[in-house]
Amino acid sequence: MFESAEIGHKVDKASYEKQLPALREALLEAQYDLSSSGAFPVVILIGGVDGAGRSETVGLLNQWLDPRHIETHGMGEPSDEERERPPMWRFWRALPPKGETGVFMGSWYSLPLIDRVYDRIKNAGLDRAIARNVRFERMLVDEGALVLKFWFHLSKDRQEKRLKALSKDPRTRWRVTERDWEHFSRYDKFFRVSSKVLRISSTAHAPWYIIEGEDERYRSLTVGQILLQNLRQRLEQRAAPVLSLPAPPLPVAVDNLHLLKALDLSASLDKPRYQTQLEQLQGRLNLLTRHRRFGDISVVCVFEGNDAAGKGGGIRRITGALDARRYQVIPIAAPTDEEKAQPYLWRFWRHLPRRGRLTLFDRSWYGRVLVERVEGYCAEYDWMRAYSEINDFETQLVEQNIVLVKFWLAVSQEEQLKRFQERENTGFKRYKITQEDWRNREKWPAYEQAVCDMVDRTSTEIAPWTLVPANDKNYARIKILQTLCDRIEAGLKLRKR
Amino acid sequence: MFESAEIGHKVDKASYEKQLPALREALLEAQYDLSSSGAFPVVILIGGVDGAGRSETVGLLNQWLDPRHIETHGMGEPSDEERERPPMWRFWRALPPKGETGVFMGSWYSLPLIDRVYDRIKNAGLDRAIARNVRFERMLVDEGALVLKFWFHLSKDRQEKRLKALSKDPRTRWRVTERDWEHFSRYDKFFRVSSKVLRISSTAHAPWYIIEGEDERYRSLTVGQILLQNLRQRLEQRAAPVLSLPAPPLPVAVDNLHLLKALDLSASLDKPRYQTQLEQLQGRLNLLTRHRRFGDISVVCVFEGNDAAGKGGGIRRITGALDARRYQVIPIAAPTDEEKAQPYLWRFWRHLPRRGRLTLFDRSWYGRVLVERVEGYCAEYDWMRAYSEINDFETQLVEQNIVLVKFWLAVSQEEQLKRFQERENTGFKRYKITQEDWRNREKWPAYEQAVCDMVDRTSTEIAPWTLVPANDKNYARIKILQTLCDRIEAGLKLRKR
Repeated sequence: MFESAEIGHKVDKASYEKQLPALREALLEAQYDLSSSGAFPVVILIGGVDGAGRSETVGLLNQWLDPRHIETHGMGEPSDEERERPPMWRFWRALPPKGETGVFMGSWYSLPLIDRVYDRIKNAGLDRAIARNVRFERMLVDEGALVLKFWFHLSKDRQEKRLKALSKDPRTRWRVTERDWEHFSRYDKFFRVSSKVLRISSTAHAPWYIIEGEDERYRSLTVGQILLQNLRQRLEQRAAPVLSLPAPPLPVAVDNLHLLKALDLSASLDKPRYQTQLEQLQGRLNLLTRHRRFGDISVVCVFEGNDAAGKGGGIRRITGALDARRYQVIPIAAPTDEEKAQPYLWRFWRHLPRRGRLTLFDRSWYGRVLVERVEGYCAEYDWMRAYSEINDFETQLVEQNIVLVKFWLAVSQEEQLKRFQERENTGFKRYKITQEDWRNREKWPAYEQAVCDMVDRTSTEIAPWTLVPANDKNYARIKILQTLCDRIEAGLKLRKR
Repeated sequence: MFESAEIGHKVDKASYEKQLPALREALLEAQYDLSSSGAFPVVILIGGVDGAGRSETVGLLNQWLDPRHIETHGMGEPSDEERERPPMWRFWRALPPKGETGVFMGSWYSLPLIDRVYDRIKNAGLDRAIARNVRFERMLVDEGALVLKFWFHLSKDRQEKRLKALSKDPRTRWRVTERDWEHFSRYDKFFRVSSKVLRISSTAHAPWYIIEGEDERYRSLTVGQILLQNLRQRLEQRAAPVLSLPAPPLPVAVDNLHLLKALDLSASLDKPRYQTQLEQLQGRLNLLTRHRRFGDISVVCVFEGNDAAGKGGGIRRITGALDARRYQVIPIAAPTDEEKAQPYLWRFWRHLPRRGRLTLFDRSWYGRVLVERVEGYCAEYDWMRAYSEINDFETQLVEQNIVLVKFWLAVSQEEQLKRFQERENTGFKRYKITQEDWRNREKWPAYEQAVCDMVDRTSTEIAPWTLVPANDKNYARIKILQTLCDRIEAGLKLRKR
């Protein structure tokens, strides 16, 4: 793995100064083409051995490139804010938008690697983290990002020499910390663990570039050249169509029966019983959110359903029971410009709640496999891969003690028609109905198929879907509150799941 | 995950008999197109709950399709032969060639799943197995295979009913074993574990198809339709170009220094010292292979190197020390027809040694990233993904206690020329030199680059490369024997690695 980075690479001053101007010009030009086209984001990871030139390289990149289009993230200890979210949250919020470059010094590999070296996690934990990273990078690349991973290496001898040299020179002494020497004392273990990390995470779509860190000129030219080559290659490929593996066909049930058809929509609840149960459940929900252990968890609710199925009403019955400081309702409409410049999950990551709080999504990331699929807003391969990307995402939520509750509110076609007409005929409801709603209605079977596939592929043991018969609003609202209370109780371990 | 498979799917007899003839005809036709074109292999996995119709479905497939082009593998307990190889070996040797269909009843998921249900492995072990399977299937699909995964599901109630019904009927009683009831007693755990397995291993390129197992007609038609749709889609796609993600460029060292140039080729050994050391080392090697613990490990040696670098001579110095029943030398030339119809790693899997034995590969799977890359025999994406596929492969070997030793024998261009000329001028050596050798020589820099990239990306902490300066044959042979003995000793844990 590191063989080529221990052979004493060196570039002499004259040759460096001869090559540099052309390289810098070409880099600036490529960066300009990138930012003016907004073609794709560039994600640069800087990892490696202490003293091997990581910060110098980051400095150089900032010096060489137009600083308006590059952002550097020194990822040290996570903040309180960050610790209360899944570990990947801090990286998601720092991802560069299309056309821009983000440099991560300290990446999604750093913490698992250091934790393994210091025996805070075992091999199994490291394996899980690497697998998560590989899937994450695959998703970034599938979403169009250029992911460049640089690893700066020094042999043990050379690291020792370099740390000593840095310590001796008063101009660089500040760079060498106690921590660096402590890391050095574990060089051999660090070497073994990072070999393994690099072996598994060096993939065809996002390989590691391992760079000998000894000679500054060699190191700098090499990073510059690799960056340039990659930018140029990717900018040119934008022109050519990049197909990916064809997605296998999704089957349609041979007996024309499916989940939604099998759902009994006639369930209902009369007004007096509804009122009593509503009050009871809202009281129970309120108590649960004030439970002393509620500060250890958070809650994410997803509301999906047919148009006019009563998502808003369901949400209001929940928020009616909550302290306004505890929750946020996120209505999902068309993405903003800023959101369009990011992987599609980005706009949901940004709204994840801190501990002790609830986020209610009125429509959600499932738009990818519902409206985007049916309306053809994204390619087949893209929504097909979304199922596992969503499962990955939700796994991370659940592992962070987030209680994730997903509702599909189902109404019949007839009931929907009644509600549409009522909306059109009632002044204060008219804003709720648009031409688009009528158009979607025409694609009823396609949407039904998409919903069934969605449930089949994303109703998991850690994040099941709850299908809510919603022809009767009373029944639906009670079912929603009931399910939510049960799931929070289970999350608080107040009773067995 | 299983929601759609618990809603009571049913197909009535009339409709079944109406649809069946057309389906069977279309299936046969698709199978004929497949086998006559030899376009791709079809790998079908049959998994799920006992009594949900797995064996009936396999029976049906064999009845519906031309039996000459379908092979069924009932994968039960591994044999002795199989237990002595990595767990995936039994599946590799059963993979169908292009144009053919292989049905696996009991797949690479079965053992990890059952082991988890019976607490023989932990979650971490299950995670590792799933990740391995996902990578394996990705490789199969990248190599062109159609991978179809069927999961037959029954709810707990229905499984109980079905097992009871089968037990009652004298014609089917034999089908229900003690083991089935024992599994049933663990239904809930089985349900949870398989949910997880399906969640993680349902990928965009090889999703699971979950099928309700209750109604035989529904089940059969569904499997038939899915198989047909997939065959047709894939047969049609063969016409269109399927590009994949572009591989990032590999950099060339900015200082023109690389591993092979940094290697000191002047090392040599005079004849008397060579003779003494040769004898000592051969004795040591022989003793090691007769060590009582040698039966717990096996040895795989890979010999790669420049043409005329002395691979054959090196191998003979090893085999000279070994009992002929213990080793096999596998010379790798152009693949046979049978090998060409399989993923490129298949021809190497088939030669993996049993415990207590050695296999010496004279050239190896590294041909993929050497000759196939340089000569353009495979696409860039294909050799780029090979690095991680090879690392996956070698990880499986090492995990099975195989000591894996990889040699690159390096000679200078001048030394090679000398040896080529000598071969041409010596009658009994003339067969060893061909026009191809001369042609390869012209691509020296391209081969050098390929070797450096290969070492950088596949010299891992578990399977390092040994670069052998081979201008002097004596020196090279001693270095090879020495390395091999050291590595076997470490494998036998005779001393600390």
